[in-house]
Amino acid sequence: MAESQGAEPLFRRLALLGIGLIGSSVARIAMQNRAIAGEVVASARTQATLDRVRELGIADRVELDPARAVEGADCVMLCAPVGAYAALAEAIAPHLAPGAILTDVGSTKQSVIRDVGPLVPGGVHFVPAHPLAGTEYSGPDSGFVTLFQNRWCLLTPPPGTDADAVERIAELWRRFGSMVEVMEPSHHDRVLAIVSHLPHLLAFTICGTADDLEGESRQQVLQFAASGFRDFTRIAASDPVMWRDVFLNNREALLEMLARFTEDAQAMARAVRWGDAAYIEESVQRGRRIRRSLIEMKQA
Amino acid sequence: MAESQGAEPLFRRLALLGIGLIGSSVARIAMQNRAIAGEVVASARTQATLDRVRELGIADRVELDPARAVEGADCVMLCAPVGAYAALAEAIAPHLAPGAILTDVGSTKQSVIRDVGPLVPGGVHFVPAHPLAGTEYSGPDSGFVTLFQNRWCLLTPPPGTDADAVERIAELWRRFGSMVEVMEPSHHDRVLAIVSHLPHLLAFTICGTADDLEGESRQQVLQFAASGFRDFTRIAASDPVMWRDVFLNNREALLEMLARFTEDAQAMARAVRWGDAAYIEESVQRGRRIRRSLIEMKQA
Repeated sequence: MAESQGAEPLFRRLALLGIGLIGSSVARIAMQNRAIAGEVVASARTQATLDRVRELGIADRVELDPARAVEGADCVMLCAPVGAYAALAEAIAPHLAPGAILTDVGSTKQSVIRDVGPLVPGGVHFVPAHPLAGTEYSGPDSGFVTLFQNRWCLLTPPPGTDADAVERIAELWRRFGSMVEVMEPSHHDRVLAIVSHLPHLLAFTICGTADDLEGESRQQVLQFAASGFRDFTRIAASDPVMWRDVFLNNREALLEMLARFTEDAQAMARAVRWGDAAYIEESVQRGRRIRRSLIEMKQA
Repeated sequence: MAESQGAEPLFRRLALLGIGLIGSSVARIAMQNRAIAGEVVASARTQATLDRVRELGIADRVELDPARAVEGADCVMLCAPVGAYAALAEAIAPHLAPGAILTDVGSTKQSVIRDVGPLVPGGVHFVPAHPLAGTEYSGPDSGFVTLFQNRWCLLTPPPGTDADAVERIAELWRRFGSMVEVMEPSHHDRVLAIVSHLPHLLAFTICGTADDLEGESRQQVLQFAASGFRDFTRIAASDPVMWRDVFLNNREALLEMLARFTEDAQAMARAVRWGDAAYIEESVQRGRRIRRSLIEMKQA
């Protein structure tokens, strides 16, 4: 979106709490495009991360204390693992500016509303968001300005959220290059459980199963990984703390999807054991049909 | 490998029984590089496939009858789904030329030795092989000449196989651009169960689990597939008959690996249910370590 020189930016001051893959990508975009934020403030859990942010030049200012980082910010974005949100929200709540928008980028949304919602002061707008974008890398060095381009960002505002605040966060993500959709938090968590959280759980698990094999076989898993296993290890290389928190904070939906999956895998095991060729063939056909639908939707 | 003009080719006549992704890639390479085979004969289950092979110009001759295809061939390669091997071997056995080498490209090796081995006439050499290469596409149009480059081909000759015959098949695959390794058939089946067959089974299964979701969620699985699910659908798009036969013919190893995996997935489910953060984090860390090992081995 073209912005005339000197026009008012979307936000005067954007405070990012957490500066890993997502936070540092947001910071890089905002530093490049001054129509997004007049000032970018970065906060992180460790001074070492902030020193690196300064070296990279991806924020105007760094603050170790999140309470100081949010002072005077009209947009505050939580970019830490979702398990850290409650403590962060508690620390910043008294320091949020009246009229500010508090948002986030976490992969679970009911837990965020549960943990953060009650702490948001009157006069501050709370617009939870989740950009469906990522790589297997993490930390302030891993971000890049095109991360969100042509990716979805899902907004899950609680009932009664100010419509202007929702629209400003939607506009923020559109300026990052994303497509925006508003969704019920519970529906978000269910959909993400099957499209993202369960695939990651399966990928982490099969890596462990392979790692437990005896001597020579274990070595050969690595040697011959190209045969399918490698596709699983890419998504299994993701940030451990982030994923630990996602699993723990989308427990119900994840366990339900894993239970459904396990039933289906056991039905497949039974078909293999008893030689039910038709069942196996039909299962593979379904995979093909889904892949074809994806390609038709230009997602693949 | 440079060959001087007019030198004797590695095989005088190469007969390919089955002309899908693998068979048609072999055919394309052999037609381009006359140092590999003096004549390429293709056989397939249907006349329509052979008509297509003729249109594509990827064989010197086509034969619907596999018995006629193998006559006078000094190398016969089974490139059909492994479930079709027993009937094919029965049909061609009386027609194999003395001194010929019978080989294959199937993903399961104990079953191939069980089904084909007893039918191989005296004086014919049997060298089972498995190129670890593929895409999610199938049929005679899907092959391409670089499919095997820098990929492994595993040879699993039964005890007592003629060493010269093994070396000639090894040389064939090296000319296709592959790295060759000789392996015990049972060891092959176990390693492939974890690096290839189980990942495919999980991918087919999760596609089905997602496909079973109710209305809106099912639609959104496709819309938001980029979040991990999509990586699974790529390998789930593979040929149904080929994979049905792989599962049925590597039953013991596949069921064992699936049982181990299921135990591990249940342990993860338990950790999620009871909030065992350390267990989950350690599981994700293992995935990362395996990915790192892969990258160090230059496989990734």
